[in-house]
Amino acid sequence: MKSLPEFKDVLSAAEKIAGYAFETPLLIAQDLSEKLDAEIYIKPECLQRVGAFKFRGAFNRLSRLTAEERKRGVVAYSSGNHAQGVAASAQILGMDAVIVMPTDSPQMKLQNTKDYGAEVITYDRETESREDIADKISEERGCIVVPSFEDFYIISGQGTVALEALSQAEEKGVKLDLFMTPIGGGGLISGCSLAVKGLSPKTEIYGVEPEGFNDVQRSLESGEIKSNQTATGSICDAILTFHPEPMTFKIMSDNLSGVLTVSDQEVLVAMKYAWEKLKLVVEPGACVALAAVLHGKIDVKGKKVCLVLSGGNVDEQTFKNALDT
Amino acid sequence: MKSLPEFKDVLSAAEKIAGYAFETPLLIAQDLSEKLDAEIYIKPECLQRVGAFKFRGAFNRLSRLTAEERKRGVVAYSSGNHAQGVAASAQILGMDAVIVMPTDSPQMKLQNTKDYGAEVITYDRETESREDIADKISEERGCIVVPSFEDFYIISGQGTVALEALSQAEEKGVKLDLFMTPIGGGGLISGCSLAVKGLSPKTEIYGVEPEGFNDVQRSLESGEIKSNQTATGSICDAILTFHPEPMTFKIMSDNLSGVLTVSDQEVLVAMKYAWEKLKLVVEPGACVALAAVLHGKIDVKGKKVCLVLSGGNVDEQTFKNALDT
Repeated sequence: MKSLPEFKDVLSAAEKIAGYAFETPLLIAQDLSEKLDAEIYIKPECLQRVGAFKFRGAFNRLSRLTAEERKRGVVAYSSGNHAQGVAASAQILGMDAVIVMPTDSPQMKLQNTKDYGAEVITYDRETESREDIADKISEERGCIVVPSFEDFYIISGQGTVALEALSQAEEKGVKLDLFMTPIGGGGLISGCSLAVKGLSPKTEIYGVEPEGFNDVQRSLESGEIKSNQTATGSICDAILTFHPEPMTFKIMSDNLSGVLTVSDQEVLVAMKYAWEKLKLVVEPGACVALAAVLHGKIDVKGKKVCLVLSGGNVDEQTFKNALDT
Repeated sequence: MKSLPEFKDVLSAAEKIAGYAFETPLLIAQDLSEKLDAEIYIKPECLQRVGAFKFRGAFNRLSRLTAEERKRGVVAYSSGNHAQGVAASAQILGMDAVIVMPTDSPQMKLQNTKDYGAEVITYDRETESREDIADKISEERGCIVVPSFEDFYIISGQGTVALEALSQAEEKGVKLDLFMTPIGGGGLISGCSLAVKGLSPKTEIYGVEPEGFNDVQRSLESGEIKSNQTATGSICDAILTFHPEPMTFKIMSDNLSGVLTVSDQEVLVAMKYAWEKLKLVVEPGACVALAAVLHGKIDVKGKKVCLVLSGGNVDEQTFKNALDT
């Protein structure tokens, strides 16, 4: 296995992305806190540059490339948020970017990625391998592959979400009991767990996956990497990853207290709740931790909890479906 | 005329509401800034307690009542956001509150006001006088009338929006050229203008009203208080006030550089823009300053601008109408 990032690497990432990534606020969820007799805080990464936390890891990764590598450009595969993160980072750093995206990506994510100046190549999620397509492009054009989560700098970049949240909590005099994020490939929660364990070792970390796509839950329970059966069939497009990879699996195994699951219906309810009470636009996959807490999947009574809402790039129709819930 | 609040009264309000009102963040609007070749900042008061800036003034006002007055309780009239601000403040301070609201208030605002423990009495906007109803209740029950804008403590409380925004801008090393807010009765912009002129006298202040409800624009142009013809007919329910009152008229006359107007259609476009690019849920009346800038009603090229998005309490159907725009 490649060397694993540590807490100090998250600190280094924070320096690297400062002035490019936004410092998102830490919000108190007043209504939810009263409802659950808890102190619930929200880290709204939907307010991040490109509308998702993915900019943090992507910018950290790309800014570590050598001058020679930068000239070669980058290629990435992503259902949309990593795509936008890589495209926007490449644009800022003056590099070419090719992004391999599934044909069924939300229209907004496809359009935004093009708007950040990237060349977009689409593929069929069920029949084609995005890794193969990216490898082929890398071989033909000489550009650098930027993984969506299994990468030293990507993981440590995503960890700045928790680094920021914990320092903001500390400013408010708050010591968190629980820190919760969505899980796709595990880049976000792995990086965050490094920051949480570095700053506040007693804070427990939980991840949340969509029902039927609980590869990480099954992997951690069994002690070996397990895969999902399919890559489609949930509205949580941003977090439908086949399986964790060795780095994220190892870090999650070391640091997570547990993984919960939520249904698509519970996610829609959470999206509507975020609209109604938090006044935030959150995409399905970014809402799973909120959905888990709203639906009592974990007992938070009397606890201080931070929920990461990881992105807000959602199509109109999906959003309307949530409002109709 | 009653004595007018000054900059020092905004500072005093900030102390009074600290720990009750939220400190909302100052966000950079990346896409809008690039589109307009400007630096556009957003002060999202939709993220404020009760989903609107109105909590600031209401809490400042209610917390100034004597122990004897608190026992008598309060009565207020409002289309919805002041209602929620007063109801939530009264609940925190352990007082009774009666709120007089139009029958056509957004359902969410009526429900939230009840949820904060207030007694809600509805009236017909076109045929009944909310002032008369409130006065009658005050007389019968002995409770204190809390005006929605024409009040020393309400105005100075609302001014904390700008106080916070300017101090946050300063932390980022930003000196604002323009500060823009919606105008209803003028409480928000009057209070903000005291803070802006106190901290940054060269920053220009513009207000925005719905087309056909430009009572303040006409009042400032003519030098005397002018009224709107009607109280209904725009989607901007939160800011359909008949006319400014002596205090807000005087402060606005002294401090404003101008007033702009926007159509309902332009407001819907701005709501959708806030959803798509800012990931914020903003109600129609709260979107007018954003609508004005988006539609080129004022030249912001090369300027540093702060737009107040003053609230986010909007019904589903209105929000869907914006998404369909």
